[in-house]
Amino acid sequence: MCITGKQYIGATQHFGLGGQTYAVNPATGEAMEPAFGGGTAADVDAACSLAAAAFNSYRATSLEQRALFLEEIAEGVLALGDTLIERVMAESGLLRGRVESERGRTVGQLRLFASLLRAGRFLGATFDTPLPDRLPLSRPDLRTQKIGLGPVAVFGASNFPLAFSVAGGDTAAALAAACPVVAKAHPSHLGTSELVAGVIQRAIASAGLPEGVFSLLIDDAANSVSTALVQHPAIQAVAFTGSRRIGLLLVSLASQRTVPIPVFAEMSGINPVFVLPAALEASCQRIAQGLIDSATVGAGQLCTKPGIAVGIAGKSFENFRAAAKAALEVKESATMLSSDIQRAYAQGIDHWKCDSGVDQIAMAGTEPSSSCAGRPALFATTAAHFLVTPHLLEEVFGPTTLLIECSDEKELIGIANHLDGQLTATLQMETADIGLARTLLPILEQKAGRILVNGFPTGVEVGYAMVHGGPFPATSDSRVTSVGAMAIDRFLRPVCYQNFPSELLPMALQDGNPLRIPRVVDGEIKLPEI
Amino acid sequence: MCITGKQYIGATQHFGLGGQTYAVNPATGEAMEPAFGGGTAADVDAACSLAAAAFNSYRATSLEQRALFLEEIAEGVLALGDTLIERVMAESGLLRGRVESERGRTVGQLRLFASLLRAGRFLGATFDTPLPDRLPLSRPDLRTQKIGLGPVAVFGASNFPLAFSVAGGDTAAALAAACPVVAKAHPSHLGTSELVAGVIQRAIASAGLPEGVFSLLIDDAANSVSTALVQHPAIQAVAFTGSRRIGLLLVSLASQRTVPIPVFAEMSGINPVFVLPAALEASCQRIAQGLIDSATVGAGQLCTKPGIAVGIAGKSFENFRAAAKAALEVKESATMLSSDIQRAYAQGIDHWKCDSGVDQIAMAGTEPSSSCAGRPALFATTAAHFLVTPHLLEEVFGPTTLLIECSDEKELIGIANHLDGQLTATLQMETADIGLARTLLPILEQKAGRILVNGFPTGVEVGYAMVHGGPFPATSDSRVTSVGAMAIDRFLRPVCYQNFPSELLPMALQDGNPLRIPRVVDGEIKLPEI
Repeated sequence: MCITGKQYIGATQHFGLGGQTYAVNPATGEAMEPAFGGGTAADVDAACSLAAAAFNSYRATSLEQRALFLEEIAEGVLALGDTLIERVMAESGLLRGRVESERGRTVGQLRLFASLLRAGRFLGATFDTPLPDRLPLSRPDLRTQKIGLGPVAVFGASNFPLAFSVAGGDTAAALAAACPVVAKAHPSHLGTSELVAGVIQRAIASAGLPEGVFSLLIDDAANSVSTALVQHPAIQAVAFTGSRRIGLLLVSLASQRTVPIPVFAEMSGINPVFVLPAALEASCQRIAQGLIDSATVGAGQLCTKPGIAVGIAGKSFENFRAAAKAALEVKESATMLSSDIQRAYAQGIDHWKCDSGVDQIAMAGTEPSSSCAGRPALFATTAAHFLVTPHLLEEVFGPTTLLIECSDEKELIGIANHLDGQLTATLQMETADIGLARTLLPILEQKAGRILVNGFPTGVEVGYAMVHGGPFPATSDSRVTSVGAMAIDRFLRPVCYQNFPSELLPMALQDGNPLRIPRVVDGEIKLPEI
Repeated sequence: MCITGKQYIGATQHFGLGGQTYAVNPATGEAMEPAFGGGTAADVDAACSLAAAAFNSYRATSLEQRALFLEEIAEGVLALGDTLIERVMAESGLLRGRVESERGRTVGQLRLFASLLRAGRFLGATFDTPLPDRLPLSRPDLRTQKIGLGPVAVFGASNFPLAFSVAGGDTAAALAAACPVVAKAHPSHLGTSELVAGVIQRAIASAGLPEGVFSLLIDDAANSVSTALVQHPAIQAVAFTGSRRIGLLLVSLASQRTVPIPVFAEMSGINPVFVLPAALEASCQRIAQGLIDSATVGAGQLCTKPGIAVGIAGKSFENFRAAAKAALEVKESATMLSSDIQRAYAQGIDHWKCDSGVDQIAMAGTEPSSSCAGRPALFATTAAHFLVTPHLLEEVFGPTTLLIECSDEKELIGIANHLDGQLTATLQMETADIGLARTLLPILEQKAGRILVNGFPTGVEVGYAMVHGGPFPATSDSRVTSVGAMAIDRFLRPVCYQNFPSELLPMALQDGNPLRIPRVVDGEIKLPEI
């Protein structure tokens, strides 16, 4: 279980020759042992070629085999115990409670996809039964199922070293879809990545799967591994969670390939919270506390952090602002994920400070001692200023939020219309707010993938109904989610089998429904008999 | 019912000021009255703005209202009677039987989407029930449905003046998804487009829908209407069937927008037919006849036309070639859709003729009298030549096909591996071919959206299980189909409603299942009680 600094290329471990790099403990600024070897173009080619070679035999595994494989990975992650938890804490600056809960989520995701595999619904088995006597033309026997796209490149996210990295949601969804995965470790948590990659490699060996089902690459200083990975002809899709800049870069790279491929980039946003008048009046204290808790949890480093809160001017709004100020001031500075992220946060709030239309309401505590700490901050502006200030539409990743004061309902609706695509939008409302909520809802449905009432957007539930997606620029493809069971759809495409002899038909499409899965026959769902 | 040459912009008819253009009868070369006025940037903006304005009230219609609306369009298309049939024939050169059957398909598509609406399954209603007592965190009430993306731009296809044009499959799918449509008429069938647009406009009025639900634009000579349409901020998706060149141009335009949008471009291919050894021996006559019929039907102007047929050298292959030659020679030249298409076809077969590795096996009949006629032609080459000659991977749109002779099974498998993405792939096989078929199947699954056994790819069934799609370059997005019920998925995205009060929930997600649709609850399908 010791960390070696090597990449995992299929069944082998290989110290990359593309230059050495270290994980850094953000709390201390110290480089952590061991050195990691950055990969080369040859490493990318080796991993991707193994993935391509593994695809057909991996997708020939049964649903149950793949479910057991995912569960074995989940067990392996748990079995790493404190070795893993402590490495994550050291590499990310995240606290034990958060890391343990993220591990729980990671394990839960793997198990969710195992359940999804056993249910078989994701295969979309669909039949048009033959009509040999139909006039003027007979209808053939058509049977359709979804199959995996092929090898998927997964980019680890900085802010979820477990749940959105090496064995995270993207990997779990891709492996469930029978797509081999070539993961690229996030440079902030190289040791964590190696520990988890070892778990997957051992699960592959113990399940007797082809080695190319999984590889882990480490980038060099010039990001040439990432570039070569997206460009490699074997790769059929890319999954990414991170900044808009990098997300758009990957989209652009993928679209310039000889054979373009989809990039599912989750690029976050400002997750507006609309505090409607009756709620503002009834609960300004509770809402202010919830807002500040949600904006500062995990040092504000969550894709769903509420970046703006919008209400209508008046006595209640003043109370709300005062309550938010009080709630913010007792928060503490916390170590951020990396010095790059801390620097970007500092620049982001400096940008707000220098904007004469934005007021600084509060900063938490004193200047932090660690150079990598993020100091919670609260700002406010008017709707009139927000509507003419494009930079305020951009996310500031870290423990801060911006209160927006509207002069009336019309201006509040104007804010909703003005927003870019978002992962989430939230309504804080009372029954008396229903009219305004009804006006806002159709707007917000077009702006966000998830709409909450009287909650806060952080804390993304991993289930069947979760949508962690939304219109551009929240993501590069609003038609999918990157969290929850539906995330598997990103890596599937339908194939129709016409007039196939029974010996050649895939299991999911055979007469008698041997997999006992729900199937659509001539437009109607048929459930397997119990 | 007279044709005016005007665009339909919402409820108005407007003669475009972007220069006059005429439909041309390809059989006679004559321009047909009346003149059509090409649109301007202002027309595009007017149509798209009306579409955006209509979106929210259109999507607030019930499933039943939209189903009735689609059925009314179907009735209206039929009610045009011979006025429509004769205009299509004159503008396209297609024969009456084909045009009538295409009208039947168009009407059938509209009715299929009406059924799909009534069944409500496409909404993907999915629930995670709340777990207020779960530890460490309660689970919220999560309910998800799919909603329309917004206004869709539909580009009429040259080769399906009805089924893939103004009220064709793309329009039917978009309207079913509650997306307003701005259609761009194909310049080859302007009169047909106007007649059908009139039907939709009347159906909108009679259903009391907002006028912006549908508009029809006519392009100018510089294609600036098409460009402005794809670039308009109100447009949220593009549907296109046509050439690879234009398809890729639209993809590129859409990706350069401030807010990029998906383009669903169906760009066709060469639809390989693999004639396996036992089938070649047992049925070379029948297969040759079927191949030539499929390659020449509709003057070979179908996206699924078999462009290559692959077999292994030997006596049976010689018989197959001779039978194909005989079948081809009795075919007749037929008027092609337009002089542009005829010219491209002539260039395509000239390219083959000039290739010293390709043999011309047969040409049908004599040089045709009409300048717009396509003369059926049969060519042959070796696998060795095919594998090193990139231009042979490109579609030649028209009544021709290329026989490919392999020296052995290995070379035949090599051809399968060498292919680009395709809409279809076909196996002609006997029971004795099962071993080779099992080897080919995993390759073909990765190459094509539909795989046929002992059939021919033309004649695309419109049902629930059809996949008319496939990996790039057959389409720009292998995860979808442009024919059949699943085509609606292109225009939908999921939205999750968290902890919503019942008054605000969409019908599909309300307690008690008022729409009586199948819903997924905690991972299991629940059918409405009967």
